[in-house]
Amino acid sequence: MDENQNSARQRLHALSEFLEREELDAVIIVHDDEYLSEELSPECERLRFLTGFTGSAGAFTFARSFDPARRKNETGNPKAGQEILKDAAVFVDGRYTLQVKAQIDGSCMQSFCYTDLTPSCWLCSVLPRGAKVGIDLNCISYDGYLKFKNHLAKSGISLVETRINAADAIWTDRPSPVHTKVRIFPDEYNGCPSPQKRRNLARELRERGLDATVICDPESICWLLNIRGRDRHCLPVVCCRMVAYSNEALEWYISDDHFDDNIQKALETHVGHIDIFPEDRFDEALKRLCASSASVYTDPQTVNAHVMKTLYEGGARVTEGLGLCLLPKAVKNHVELKGEYKAHIKDGVAMCRFLSWLDELTCPLKAQSDPEGYVRRVRDTDEKILADRAESFRKVEADYIEPSFDTISALGSDASMVHYSYLNSPNPKHLGDSPLYMIDSGAHYLDGTTDITRTVLVGPGFTDEMRLMCTLVLKCHISFATLLFPKGTSGGQLDAIARRPLWDAGCDYAHGTGHGVGHLLSVHEGPQAVSLHRSSVPLEPGMIISDEPGYYKDGCYGIRTENLLVVQECQRPGMRHMLCFSPLTLVPIDTRTIDPKRLTAGEREWLNNYHQNVCSVIKNASGTLTDSEVSWLIKATEPI
Amino acid sequence: MDENQNSARQRLHALSEFLEREELDAVIIVHDDEYLSEELSPECERLRFLTGFTGSAGAFTFARSFDPARRKNETGNPKAGQEILKDAAVFVDGRYTLQVKAQIDGSCMQSFCYTDLTPSCWLCSVLPRGAKVGIDLNCISYDGYLKFKNHLAKSGISLVETRINAADAIWTDRPSPVHTKVRIFPDEYNGCPSPQKRRNLARELRERGLDATVICDPESICWLLNIRGRDRHCLPVVCCRMVAYSNEALEWYISDDHFDDNIQKALETHVGHIDIFPEDRFDEALKRLCASSASVYTDPQTVNAHVMKTLYEGGARVTEGLGLCLLPKAVKNHVELKGEYKAHIKDGVAMCRFLSWLDELTCPLKAQSDPEGYVRRVRDTDEKILADRAESFRKVEADYIEPSFDTISALGSDASMVHYSYLNSPNPKHLGDSPLYMIDSGAHYLDGTTDITRTVLVGPGFTDEMRLMCTLVLKCHISFATLLFPKGTSGGQLDAIARRPLWDAGCDYAHGTGHGVGHLLSVHEGPQAVSLHRSSVPLEPGMIISDEPGYYKDGCYGIRTENLLVVQECQRPGMRHMLCFSPLTLVPIDTRTIDPKRLTAGEREWLNNYHQNVCSVIKNASGTLTDSEVSWLIKATEPI
Repeated sequence: MDENQNSARQRLHALSEFLEREELDAVIIVHDDEYLSEELSPECERLRFLTGFTGSAGAFTFARSFDPARRKNETGNPKAGQEILKDAAVFVDGRYTLQVKAQIDGSCMQSFCYTDLTPSCWLCSVLPRGAKVGIDLNCISYDGYLKFKNHLAKSGISLVETRINAADAIWTDRPSPVHTKVRIFPDEYNGCPSPQKRRNLARELRERGLDATVICDPESICWLLNIRGRDRHCLPVVCCRMVAYSNEALEWYISDDHFDDNIQKALETHVGHIDIFPEDRFDEALKRLCASSASVYTDPQTVNAHVMKTLYEGGARVTEGLGLCLLPKAVKNHVELKGEYKAHIKDGVAMCRFLSWLDELTCPLKAQSDPEGYVRRVRDTDEKILADRAESFRKVEADYIEPSFDTISALGSDASMVHYSYLNSPNPKHLGDSPLYMIDSGAHYLDGTTDITRTVLVGPGFTDEMRLMCTLVLKCHISFATLLFPKGTSGGQLDAIARRPLWDAGCDYAHGTGHGVGHLLSVHEGPQAVSLHRSSVPLEPGMIISDEPGYYKDGCYGIRTENLLVVQECQRPGMRHMLCFSPLTLVPIDTRTIDPKRLTAGEREWLNNYHQNVCSVIKNASGTLTDSEVSWLIKATEPI
Repeated sequence: MDENQNSARQRLHALSEFLEREELDAVIIVHDDEYLSEELSPECERLRFLTGFTGSAGAFTFARSFDPARRKNETGNPKAGQEILKDAAVFVDGRYTLQVKAQIDGSCMQSFCYTDLTPSCWLCSVLPRGAKVGIDLNCISYDGYLKFKNHLAKSGISLVETRINAADAIWTDRPSPVHTKVRIFPDEYNGCPSPQKRRNLARELRERGLDATVICDPESICWLLNIRGRDRHCLPVVCCRMVAYSNEALEWYISDDHFDDNIQKALETHVGHIDIFPEDRFDEALKRLCASSASVYTDPQTVNAHVMKTLYEGGARVTEGLGLCLLPKAVKNHVELKGEYKAHIKDGVAMCRFLSWLDELTCPLKAQSDPEGYVRRVRDTDEKILADRAESFRKVEADYIEPSFDTISALGSDASMVHYSYLNSPNPKHLGDSPLYMIDSGAHYLDGTTDITRTVLVGPGFTDEMRLMCTLVLKCHISFATLLFPKGTSGGQLDAIARRPLWDAGCDYAHGTGHGVGHLLSVHEGPQAVSLHRSSVPLEPGMIISDEPGYYKDGCYGIRTENLLVVQECQRPGMRHMLCFSPLTLVPIDTRTIDPKRLTAGEREWLNNYHQNVCSVIKNASGTLTDSEVSWLIKATEPI
C-alpha cells in the first residue's frame, strides 16, 4: 500500500515536471488508444499506469497549476460530494464508480462519475483563464476533441496537442508493443476471398464519388485482407492502418516485424498486390491525400482526432460515415455462418461438460440435507478455478485458439457487478456461500467466435425472490428471441421489447440487451447493437447479435442469460418481408431456477423446444461426452 | 384541366424569367415556411401554388438550363422509372407518392419519392458544372441548407441565397398574411404566470453561461407570454419572433397589426415589460448579438438557415440545442392537466353523441337483413357531411374554439391513405359501400386540445380479416397504453412495443405510434414523440402523448385507434421510479369489430375497465345526452 501510494505520487510528480517542460498547465489523458479501442494492449494501459484503475473506459486529468481557491465550479456550487480537493482526478461511468474508488490512491487523486462532473468542467473549475491544457490527439475521437476544446474555450482555456502522450513521456518501464506475425485466414473459413472484398470496396468508393478511404481499425483491415494475428488480448488481429483507393489499390501501413519471409509471398497469392509501408509513415499518406484534395471517406468512430484534423486542415474533402467494411463484415456469409454453427456445437459440448462437472461437485439440490458435506466438497473452489475449469473443457475442442474475452466468473454478490472480473478482485469468492453462480465466457475457434452467459444453482439459500428474478430474466430473453420484425428495423428499436417483463415488475438492467459478434474478430462488434446507443443500423440477415438481459441486486446477486442469435428472413409463407432470430448457442438454461407457473404457454414451448434441440445436437455431435455427462444433458434439458 | 395545365405552364414560364433576371440556372423551393413549420398559412403555400400538390412536406426543383443530354445521374444509371424527363420536379415522402401524381400536371412536371431520387441528385443530374441554384434561406433549416450546399458543391454547382423566395416573386395574387389580434391566455388556464416562465428561462440561460436565446417558433413565444392568436389554421398562435436575454429582458418582434389599443396595457399587466419591435427589424437584433459576440442559444429545428447563417457568420458564439421553452411547454402543470381532463370530457360527450347518431343512421348490424333500406337511409351522407356532423356536436360544448386539425373522415379505401383528406378528394366517398369508417379529429377548447381516432362499423361487408386486423390494432394500442417503464426512457425506445402484435402477424404501420400534444397550441407538439425520428427526449410526468397504432390495406380499408395519454409516475408501492400512462380520451372503442377470443385476459380487463370509466364519466358529466344517447353509451361500453 505504501509502495503504491509512493509510486502514484511519484508519477504525478513526474507528470508535473513534464508539464513544466512543455509549458502546459494541465493534461487530459483518456482511456482509449490510438485505434480508439476499448480493449488495450499493455503498452496502452495509460490510465492503469497512472492511477491503478483497470476499467475499460475513463479519463484522467491533472493540473500542475492547481489553484485551491478556484475549487468551486464557476457556474455554481458543485453537487454535494463533488468538491474538487486534489490536483488529479479520474472520471468513470456508472459501471465503475465503486471499482475506481477501491483501485486509486485516494490520498493524491479523486474520482468522479461523468454524470456528476466532466473532465472539462473539472479543468474549468481549477484552471485560470489563459491556461493551456495538453492532449494526445491520437487517443481521442475528433468529436470528443472538439467537444473538449469548445467547452474549455468558453472559460478562456486552450487545448493543445502534445508531441507525445504525457503518460508515455513519464512511463520509464513501458512495455514494448506486441507485434505478432500476420497469419493467413484461409478462404475455406472466410467464405469471400480478399480480392473480391477489395473489388467490392473500390466499387463502393466509386459509386459514392470518393477517391479513397482511410481505415484505422485493425479489425476492418484483417477482415478485408482475410488475415489474423495475435497483437491484442482476446482479439486476433494485427495492429495496422490502411488507405484503400477507388482504383482497388491498397496502401497498408504496418510494422515490419509482423512479417516473416514466407508470409509476404503467401500474402501476394492470398490478397493480390498491396503496397506495404511502415506504420509510422501513415502521416505521409494523409499528406498526399491532402495535397491532391482527394475526396476521402472516414469513420470518426475509429479514425482518431490526429488523423481527422490532418485531413480537414490539410484540404482533403472529407466525408464522414460508418466505416465501409463494417456492414459487409457484420453480415456473415454462408461459410462464416457454417463455421459459427460448428464453433457453437464445440462450445456447447465444452459448456455442457463444465456445467455437468459443476453440478456433480455442488449437487445443489442435495446440499440442503447435508450442508457440511457440501461445504467440505466445494470450499476450495473459487471463481478463478471455475473459470479455468470452463476454459479447460474448451481447450480440448478442435481449432480452439483463445478466450474471446476475460471470463466473468462470479459467485453471489460479485455477479451483481456487471463487469466484474475475479482477476481484479483481491478476494475472489469461493463456492459454498452463495446459491447462484454466473459465468459469462466465450472462445475464438478457427471457425468462429462464441459468447454465452448462464446463471446456475450451486448451493443452498436460493430464495423465492431469486426464482422470480431468474424467471423474469428468462422471459426477457425469450421475448427478444421470439421477435418477428420488419426489414429496416434497428436493434435500438427492439431493446425495450426485451426489457418489458422486468419493467412490469419495476426492474431493469443498466446495459444493452445485445451486441454484435465478429467472426474470429472482436466479440463486441458493430455496427449493429441492441441498445440505446450506437444502434440505429438496421439488422440484416446474417448478422449475429447477443440476447443477454439480466438483473443485478447490488451486493446480493446477479442473473444473466445470454445466447447468440443469427438474424434470418422469416421462412413462414407470406412472411419473407419479416426478420427473425435463430439461436446459435447450444447450452441448457438452468430450469431449477425457473418458476414454470410464471411462464406463458408460448414461453414454456420455446424453452422446451430449445432444450430438445440442444440435447439432440450436443448428444449427436460429440463423441467426447461421458455417460454421466450425457445423463446430465438429458436431465438438464427435460421439458418443464 | 386545361386551365390547370395552362396555369402550371405559365407559372414555370414566369419562374424561368425570374431565374434569368437573377442569373440563376435553377431553383429549389421547399414546403416549409419562414418558421420551418409544416402547417402553413395560405400565403406560404408555395408548393401548392407552383404545383397543385397539397401535402404537408415536399420540395420543388426547376432548371431553366435543363439539359436533356444530361438526364442520367452522373454517378450511375437512375433506377427504373426514375429517368428525368421534365425541367420541373416535385419530391415527396412515401405518404404522398400517390397523391402527388393525382395533383400535379404531369405534362410539365414529374414527381419523385425522396428515397428514389433527392432534389440535389436531380439538380446534379440536369445541371452542368458551374451552374448556380437559388434558394430562400428563410424557408429551410441550416442543416438542410448545408446538406444541399455540400452535395451540389461536389458536382461543381453553387447554391446561393435569393433576395426573395422565387415563388413569391411570380405569385401575383398571393394572399396577404393573416395577422390576428393578440389575446391574453388567462393564468387560470395556463397555471404559470408569464413573469415566472420568463424568470425560469433567464435562470436557465445564466446557468448555461449564455447571454441570450433566439426564439423563432410562435408556439414557444405564445407559451412564454401566455397569449394566443388565430394566425394559423388550427393553430392558435400569433406569428412572431423573440430574443430573450439572461437578464430577463425580452425583445418581441411582431407586426403592429396584431395589437389594438387595449391589448398593450393588458399585456403589461399580464407579462411585465417587454420591448416590442416590428418583425421586419429582427435582423437588427441578430446584428446586435453578433456585434457584441454574444453567446446565443438557438434551436436549429425551428430557427431558419438565414438566421443561423447571420449569427454564425456575424461572429456570435452559437450553441445549438433543443429550444429552451420546449420541455417546460411539453410538461403540463396541474392547471393545464385539469383543463385537459375537462376538455376531454366535453370532447368525449361530443364524440359519443356523434357515434350514437351514426349508429342510429347506419344500424350496421341490421343492415345485412335489409340492405335496400340501409342504402336508402345512408346514401346521401358523404365523408364531408360526417366530419361536419362530428364538429357540430363539438361546437355546442363550452369554450369550443376550432378544430385542432383538419378532420380525417374516411370510408373504405380512403382510410388506407394515412393522411387522407376529403377536402382534397374529387369524390369523397358516401356511406353505403364500405363496412368501416375512420374518423381522426380533435378540437381546441379554451381549457385544452383533443385528438382522437375511432374506426367503427357502418355497414355490411365486414370480413374476418378486418376483424382480425381491428383486434390486432387494439392489442397494439393496449400494449402501449399498459406500459410501465423507467424514468429516462424516450418515446423512440417504446415505439416497437406498440407494434409487436401486428409484427407477429407480419404487418406494420408506416407512421409513428404517437406524438406530443400542446395545450391550446399545436396538436403535434414536440419534443417527445413515440417514433423512430425526433424522439430521443425522455418522457416525463405531465407530458401528453398519443397512442395511435393502425393498419392500412392499400385500396381496401384502414384502421386506427387513438387515445391521448398522460405520462404519470406509477403510484403502486415501491414503483415510484417507474412511469406509466393514464388515458385522457373518453370515447368507446367499437367492440363489434373486435374478436374477444384473440384478446388475453389482461387485454379484456383493460378494455372493460376503460369502457366502465368512459361510461361513468360521460354519463355523469353531461346533462346534454338524450335518453337514446345514454342507452347507446351503456350498450357501447358493455363488457366483452
